[in-house]
Amino acid sequence: MTVPGGERASAKPQPVRPTLAVVGATGAVGRVLVDLLATRADVWGEVRLFAGPEGIGTEVQVLGRSEPVRALEPGCFEGVDIALFEAPEDVVEEWAPLAVAAGAVAVDGSSAFRLHPDVPLVVPEINPSAARMRRIGIIAAPRCATLVLTVALAALHAEFGLSQLVVTAALAASGRGRIGVDTLRRQTAEVAGDPTVGTRTGDLRRAVSEQEDDPFEAPLAYNLLPWAGDTTEDGWSSEELGLRNETRKILGLPELPISATCLRVPVVSGHSLTVHAVFEREPDVHRVREILDSSAGVIVYDDPEKGEYPTPADVVGSDPTWVGRVRRSLDEPHGLELFLCGDNLRKGAALNCVQIAELVAAEGQAG
Amino acid sequence: MTVPGGERASAKPQPVRPTLAVVGATGAVGRVLVDLLATRADVWGEVRLFAGPEGIGTEVQVLGRSEPVRALEPGCFEGVDIALFEAPEDVVEEWAPLAVAAGAVAVDGSSAFRLHPDVPLVVPEINPSAARMRRIGIIAAPRCATLVLTVALAALHAEFGLSQLVVTAALAASGRGRIGVDTLRRQTAEVAGDPTVGTRTGDLRRAVSEQEDDPFEAPLAYNLLPWAGDTTEDGWSSEELGLRNETRKILGLPELPISATCLRVPVVSGHSLTVHAVFEREPDVHRVREILDSSAGVIVYDDPEKGEYPTPADVVGSDPTWVGRVRRSLDEPHGLELFLCGDNLRKGAALNCVQIAELVAAEGQAG
Ligand SMILES: NC(=O)c1ccc[n+]([C@@H]2O[C@H](COP(=O)([O-])OP(=O)(O)OC[C@H]3O[C@@H](n4cnc5c(N)ncnc54)[C@H](OP(=O)(O)O)[C@@H]3O)[C@@H](O)[C@H]2O)c1
Ligand SMILES: NC(=O)c1ccc[n+]([C@@H]2O[C@H](COP(=O)([O-])OP(=O)(O)OC[C@H]3O[C@@H](n4cnc5c(N)ncnc54)[C@H](OP(=O)(O)O)[C@@H]3O)[C@@H](O)[C@H]2O)c1
Repeated sequence: MTVPGGERASAKPQPVRPTLAVVGATGAVGRVLVDLLATRADVWGEVRLFAGPEGIGTEVQVLGRSEPVRALEPGCFEGVDIALFEAPEDVVEEWAPLAVAAGAVAVDGSSAFRLHPDVPLVVPEINPSAARMRRIGIIAAPRCATLVLTVALAALHAEFGLSQLVVTAALAASGRGRIGVDTLRRQTAEVAGDPTVGTRTGDLRRAVSEQEDDPFEAPLAYNLLPWAGDTTEDGWSSEELGLRNETRKILGLPELPISATCLRVPVVSGHSLTVHAVFEREPDVHRVREILDSSAGVIVYDDPEKGEYPTPADVVGSDPTWVGRVRRSLDEPHGLELFLCGDNLRKGAALNCVQIAELVAAEGQAG
Repeated sequence: MTVPGGERASAKPQPVRPTLAVVGATGAVGRVLVDLLATRADVWGEVRLFAGPEGIGTEVQVLGRSEPVRALEPGCFEGVDIALFEAPEDVVEEWAPLAVAAGAVAVDGSSAFRLHPDVPLVVPEINPSAARMRRIGIIAAPRCATLVLTVALAALHAEFGLSQLVVTAALAASGRGRIGVDTLRRQTAEVAGDPTVGTRTGDLRRAVSEQEDDPFEAPLAYNLLPWAGDTTEDGWSSEELGLRNETRKILGLPELPISATCLRVPVVSGHSLTVHAVFEREPDVHRVREILDSSAGVIVYDDPEKGEYPTPADVVGSDPTWVGRVRRSLDEPHGLELFLCGDNLRKGAALNCVQIAELVAAEGQAG
């Protein structure tokens, strides 16, 4: 890293621009992240890109430059200040500690370190100061569904005191990465134009081709799956438990009752959540809207009579959590119903990691 | 109606086969209903078919015969014993009482009479005897989502005592009738093959063509809408309130707290429901499976480790409510989580009406 400096010794020294590494730069999240950098504050010096076997050797445009995509190898993090990991969990488990050992702060976008007791789980709109509490040099970002949810709920919790959540998350194909999107597009092309498919038992299974690395156990086109993630005990999926545990950690409510069900839906990008929230104090709907409207990273779009409610098609490519269908529970005085929608690749992943990186970079500036 | 009789006066008289009318025989539900008749007990005599402007004058195959589709007109129900209405609400409001006046029992598959205090709302697996309590000659069938839900919950309620429901219903395009399916197929053909659509704000709205009679306010292909039905007070949709009120009426629990959110999803047929149910008594999961397994019209398909859970693609064309993802709520000792899936056009509409008609026909036989 070269230090841009002035000619005159008396000139205020230019701060050294930190070097950023992006691991998984060619993935669904990584590609969005690399594009995002150009839209954010101009704080980065070198940007070093890494990927797996498919990406290595390709070139990626980042901040107007074409950068080679490299392999992870010993010494690859030398000189890196902040390393963003948007790669599979096992890759992060192995390489994030090595990045830290090389002097970098690691930001983990996978689920490798999210629930580690010494790793802060950070949503800059909610708990930015937690980013400083990185005892092992790693900061984690929550999964996409958790982000969409917590960004909307944090301020409501502060005012009314959250006491219970029942959530159904309809997860987009891109939540399963590049292969998820490719599979949905391939299957959609296979069923489009068939005038009867989807009307007889199993005809969709016959209409879509099977591929060895299919990430979904049933067709996703014209269908939905009541399953996302890995199996765990007692019939819960890892997505559901992750959403529960991460929400508790971020909101600082380790005992909060949460029931979550995750569905996979034939949407390219954009996670949707139906939320039944119960509070300690009665949530006045008028006040709820006020709070949401003034929360960072939240937009209320809610007038069904005019056809106004968020949908994945409308929120994809945007940063906030969109809130619609705000209404009081009919039979529960302290209950509130919400529909949330957010871009899982942006705020749900790439943007949140970039925001964390910016927080860390700003510490450096301040220091 | 001719009476098939024996040659000899001493022969047991053959029962008169009742005449059936189907109003809306050319719709999404009506077409399935007409096909279904061939798979059911052979009890019907004449079958008289009616439809609106598009269907009148066409011919439809029913029970191996080709029958003309007629217009509703004065006198059209003369000689009809049971009239099934699978037509728009306003048509049923006008014509069901006329069918009754002509001497028929009317079975209403629309939402015209479901909540009328003098009209029983019947699910033959749950409350068959209610069909006899038709004070104004009309029997109603609940909406598709209510059917999928109540068929699964009735026996659980009998054992554990239902005390609360939080439901998210992901409704298929065919729940919006023939036009709903046509719209989804047209939009799917329009977006299939586009390698980037669904990744930028609004690109889906540009990719699908608008048509005057579009039933959805946003693209449905590669998207989902947090809205189904008409607007009502306080931000609830008619689908959500209907699901709540009908479930209460069928289960005989007029005060049951129910929070429902209805989504429209890009699935051809097959409604999916996530259910968070709370009971008065602790629901043992093993016993829950036993009860569901032995309930009429219910199949448990639940082994996520083996990829076994119901999806619309698998349940479409079948009769039962399929139950998967059975698990105890983690933080609520009396809570249970379920995923339900059922064919909205079969049990969710056509089949339930046929079953009701068969109940009424059997009364005639018995009497
Ligand atoms: N998708 C989401 O909505 C979302 C949201 C939040 C968090 N996340 C997390 O973000 C991470 C990436 O997800 P994704 O959806 O972007 O997945 P993806 O599309 O499958 O991309 C994975 C990326 O990791 C790279 N990679 C694979 N093996 C590697 C290795 N051995 N060494 C270095 N790089 C390797 C891939 O490179 P190649 O191009 O060579 O394959 C690719 O760039 C995952 O941990 C995921 O859980 C995803
Ligand atoms: N779809 C479901 O999942 C579902 C489930 C439960 C209940 N329902 C209810 O069932 C009813 C039919 O729904 P659908 O989905 O089958 O709708 P659809 O596909 O739009 O079919 C409507 C049917 O009604 C006929 N019709 C329209 N105007 C008429 C008129 N003036 N006189 C006589 N017939 C007329 C139509 O005839 P043309 O062919 O001439 O248009 C068509 O046969 C609705 O009340 C709906 O709420 C639907």
